[in-house]
Formats: sequence, structure tokens, C-alpha cells
Amino acid sequence: MKKHNFCAGPCILPNEVFKKASESLIDFNNSGLSILEISHRSDAFIEVIETARSLALELLELNPNDYSTLFLHGGASTQFLMVAYNFLNKKAGYINTGCWSEKAIKEAKFFGELTEIASSKNQDFNYIPKNFEIPLNIDYLHITSNNTIYGTQFKEFPKTDIPLICDMSSDILSRKIDYSKFSLIYAGAQKNIGTAGTALVVIKKDFLAKITREIPSMMSYKTHIQHKSMFNTPPVFAIYTAMLNLQWLKKIGGVEFIEKVNDKKAKLLYSEIDRNPLFKGTAKKEDRSTMNATFILTNEKLKPIFDEMWKEAEINGLNGHRSVGGYRASMYNALPLYSVQTLVDVMIELERKA
Amino acid sequence: MKKHNFCAGPCILPNEVFKKASESLIDFNNSGLSILEISHRSDAFIEVIETARSLALELLELNPNDYSTLFLHGGASTQFLMVAYNFLNKKAGYINTGCWSEKAIKEAKFFGELTEIASSKNQDFNYIPKNFEIPLNIDYLHITSNNTIYGTQFKEFPKTDIPLICDMSSDILSRKIDYSKFSLIYAGAQKNIGTAGTALVVIKKDFLAKITREIPSMMSYKTHIQHKSMFNTPPVFAIYTAMLNLQWLKKIGGVEFIEKVNDKKAKLLYSEIDRNPLFKGTAKKEDRSTMNATFILTNEKLKPIFDEMWKEAEINGLNGHRSVGGYRASMYNALPLYSVQTLVDVMIELERKA
Repeated sequence: MKKHNFCAGPCILPNEVFKKASESLIDFNNSGLSILEISHRSDAFIEVIETARSLALELLELNPNDYSTLFLHGGASTQFLMVAYNFLNKKAGYINTGCWSEKAIKEAKFFGELTEIASSKNQDFNYIPKNFEIPLNIDYLHITSNNTIYGTQFKEFPKTDIPLICDMSSDILSRKIDYSKFSLIYAGAQKNIGTAGTALVVIKKDFLAKITREIPSMMSYKTHIQHKSMFNTPPVFAIYTAMLNLQWLKKIGGVEFIEKVNDKKAKLLYSEIDRNPLFKGTAKKEDRSTMNATFILTNEKLKPIFDEMWKEAEINGLNGHRSVGGYRASMYNALPLYSVQTLVDVMIELERKA
Repeated sequence: MKKHNFCAGPCILPNEVFKKASESLIDFNNSGLSILEISHRSDAFIEVIETARSLALELLELNPNDYSTLFLHGGASTQFLMVAYNFLNKKAGYINTGCWSEKAIKEAKFFGELTEIASSKNQDFNYIPKNFEIPLNIDYLHITSNNTIYGTQFKEFPKTDIPLICDMSSDILSRKIDYSKFSLIYAGAQKNIGTAGTALVVIKKDFLAKITREIPSMMSYKTHIQHKSMFNTPPVFAIYTAMLNLQWLKKIGGVEFIEKVNDKKAKLLYSEIDRNPLFKGTAKKEDRSTMNATFILTNEKLKPIFDEMWKEAEINGLNGHRSVGGYRASMYNALPLYSVQTLVDVMIELERKA
């Protein structure tokens, strides 16, 4: 019996990805070898990584002539420092929408001056700052498109000529936006791309000219691009899983299709949160994330009953982040609508019982 | 039909590791979830990483009171720079035994002065330098214990009070040595530890006091140790595979047992290389690696015949590194003796035919 997995990441992936990856651990493409024991320099793996790289651009609707894609080690946390190591020459601007932005800010400070252009800290990060002014003397503006912990999401991005860098770890490929507005996009793979162990980086080629520092090889975007994302042994299996998952997304209809499904799931859950007097959403309505819905019980005494009920319904991963508590339903691309319906049914049932 | 896989890494792992990992991609420990979709903060995964960390120390016969273990992102190539970022305060010594040492040297230069204490470059790295003098004014001495490309291996390590740092990517856990002589050991996992996508780092706790620099979080050993190797989302699947593989090694008899098997395999192959007039080993006999045997044909005209013969025998991965050519038989822990026998049989058959 497969669980309804609302985990915030690593998260649910399509069953067919698990199945194909499982088979390839025994015999990869009838080669008589496991995907884990093939050389990363073999033609078979080069095809895997090249397919994954070009599929990523295709699904983001970015022109391969203008953009480079990389699958790197180290997750988004390594990007926090690589972005600044490569592009922070004098001063950079950051928008602070909580935990992940704060981490990005902390690492960037090692490499230059920062200015916090806007922050939602004054209200526990329950909203997305708007109408802020962007100075003209910064190297780039850094944004976190979606905050998994507070359940907030940028619906519109700043209009500016300053290069935009965006951490899209938790909502890349979940909705149609104009990805070409960004000079650099990065995302830990363990949500809508694939499994933990790699990060996708997409860089506008002309942005690379801004790099002036000498940078150690593993931290250098130029080095990785030169070596076609194979400067050192790449995380073979994580990239293979990403390829399978991107193939699945393309097959079912790409970002345009999945956005409709994601909107349906989010609408179903938020409607119940707003209707049911036992629940209350924690993020400002206009900034609510379609990926991570955060909510609390209006009566804390119901917690043991509710917790027992959703666990009995084979729901997994509904607890809020350890730093904020409450509940969080993460509804990434691979989570089916009927999993959300199952959760909503439990919420209705709680109201009936209480 | 399973191939005889002599790949230099990613390399063969035990069949039971492939099988168990394959099952866990569908259902991990009867949880109703794939290993790829569980939270890295779940009790189930914490048990995995803690088991892997303590098994590594146990198999290396290191006291957990004196050593910390980490499973990090980024492979050994990231360690080239982390070692120097953390420990190169003024000047460090490096022994150059080829490609991997040279890469380590290149990255370290970003952080301080280096002195090349010994090198085998004068003879195309076909031997291990001996009887060199170690200056007393260096922060550490860096060694690559085994060179996969040239097929050389340190049989004895320098005796010195200077802290020893060793890249053991290609021979860790393959032989009994006194691992406690090293202040820091690192190894990309994709040989005798597990699969590509993580690196094992073992650090003597009292060595950490030597760190004086402020270091970005993902590059800082102290940060990773503080967070028990979970500062950010770890490469879950690569660590799980490492745990399975370390459990296998313990079960079959640990390093003491596998060393005997590895010696037998190496002896079998090198004996044939030395006996058969059609082949010639490329590394100095006394420095020959038990992990990677490098050899050439004495008559290049036999290449097409030999290549066809070993491929027909279901042998995989016998070509030398793209930078040196020739042949290389990598005989990591999981490669069975009968695979080496199969290769030797082909070599004998070639002599009969030629």
C-alpha cells in the first residue's frame, strides 16, 4: 500500500520513476550492468546527462543558444556560496523571505557587501514583500521564489534591469513563468526535479562575462560549463533519476499541464482550510504557495485526534518544519489529486467528529 | 548475464547491494515509501546515516572518541579545496604521484603556499617517491595513497609528526593499514565505499583545533561535524548505498578478509602480466597497485584481436584512462576472483592464438 506522501523534500516522485530506477539498479538498458557501476565517461551515461540537461531547458522554454545547464553536487546550499563567489564583485541585493534567503545571505557575505532590499521578517515571514525599490549599483538581485517553511510564493517577480538570481528549489517546473527573465536559476533536485544529491543550475551565457575572480574549480561555473557538467565524477544516479522525472513531466504535458493540476490541488486544500472552522492558514492569502500549504488547528486540543486520523488514512509527512510547528502539506508535481482529496476528507471528518 | 566489470569507478558493487537498493527504491523497510521520497530528518534515515558513519570507523579500526566521520557532497574533488580552505594556514607539503595529486595541488594553491616534497613526474608517474625529506614548517603533508591512472600505490607511508592528510579514494578499506596515523582521510565513495555522489571524510578530532579561518558553511568541516553530516539535505541514496556496502564488507570479514582476497586477485593478474610475453606492466613492480593494474600489449598489432576477445568474454571497462591509453584492470573489493580468472584466461588464449 503506497502512502500519500506530503513530505517537504526529499518528496514523492512518480511511481514509474521509482520503478524504472529500481530496474536500472539491477540492469541498466540491458547492458548487464547496474546504473551504479557504469563509467560516467561511457556513451550510455553521457546520453543520460545530455538528455537531462536539454530536457530541463526545453521544459523551462529556454533557448539552448542562450543558456547553459549544469547538474552539480552539493545541493542548493552550495549554490548559496557559489553564486556570490562567482558574481558578487562589489555589492549584491537580497530579498529576505525567511530561512532559505537568510542562509543565502549568510554565505554571500563571505564575498562582498550585501544590501537587504526587502524583508518580511516583521510578520514572521508570512507574506512576500512588494513595492520595494531596487538600487542600480548592485551586481545582482537574489530572490527565493518559494518558501517551503512559511508557505509563501512570489506570484510576480521584480521588473528590473539588474540581473535576477533565483533559488527555485521548491517550485521550479511547477508553474509557467517567464524563466528567461532570470540570469541564473538554481534548484536542489529533491522536489520537482528528482532525488537528493544534485542541484540544477541554469545560467544565461552572457551573464558569465561578469565573472572576474579566480575561483577554485569545483566552485567555478565556468569550469563546470567547460566540462559539460562532468568536471569530476558527477552524482550519476541522481542525474539519471532527474532524467527519468523530466521525461515523465514532458510526457504528461510539461509545465503548462502540471500547473493546472497543481492549481487544482492547491485550490482544493486551501478551500477546505478556509471553509473548515477547525483550521487556519498561516500565510497571507495572496502569497500562498501552491507547493507548500501551511496551516494550524484553531483548537490545539484536537491535535492528538487529527494526528491519529491522518496517519490512519496512510498520509505521511504532514508535520510543519521543526522550526515553526503546525502543519504543512507539500504538494509537489508528483503528488496526485486524490492524495489531497484524502487529506481534505480527513479534515471534514474531523469537523464532523469534533 | 552479469558482466565482469573492471571499471575504474564508478565500479562494481556486490550483487546483494544492488538487489537491496533496488527493492528499497520501491518500498524502503516496509514503510510504504521509496528510499528516494523519505525525509532526511526521519528516524529511518538518521539510523541509515548513523549506521554508515559508525561502520566506517569500525572497519577502519578507528576510535569514535578520537575521530569524526562525514558523508559529504561533491566527491574527492571538493575535498581538494576543503582540505586547504580549512587547514592550509601558511604552507603545506604535497607529494605528487600524478593526476589526482596535481589536481589537489592546484586547488590548494588558492589558500596558501605549497611545497612539492617529492614527485614521480620524471618517470611518467610510474613509481612512488621514497626517501624524501619532510620539512618541519608545514601545516600538513598531503598524499594520494593510490593512483588509479598509473596503477601505483603507497606500500608504506611517511613516518613524521607533521599531520598526514590522505586522499584514499581508490584504496580505502581494501587493505589493513594503520589508519590512525592520518589526521584526515577522504575518499570519493564510488570505489570501495558505495556509489558516486558522496565522499567519506574521517577527521581526527584534535586536528580541528588547527582551523583558524572563517569558512562558508558548506566548505567548513566544523559546520558539518556540528550538524552530524546533515547541515543540508544529504545525498540520501548514495549514503544508503554506502551503508549497505559497508554492512556487506563487515559481514564477509571486514578489511582483514578482503585484503587477502584483493592480494589473491592482484597476484593472479600480475603473475600473468609478467609471465605472458604479450603483456607488460607499466608501474614499477614494488609500487604496483592491488586495485588498478595497468599494462600494455608488447605488440600493438594484437590490439583489435585482444579487444574483441575480452569483450566476447563479457569483460567490461578494461581500457586505460583516456590520458594514458593501454589497459587497466580495476579490481575493487566487490570484483570476484573468477572475474580476474576470466581475464587471465583470455590473456592465455591470446598467447595461444598469436
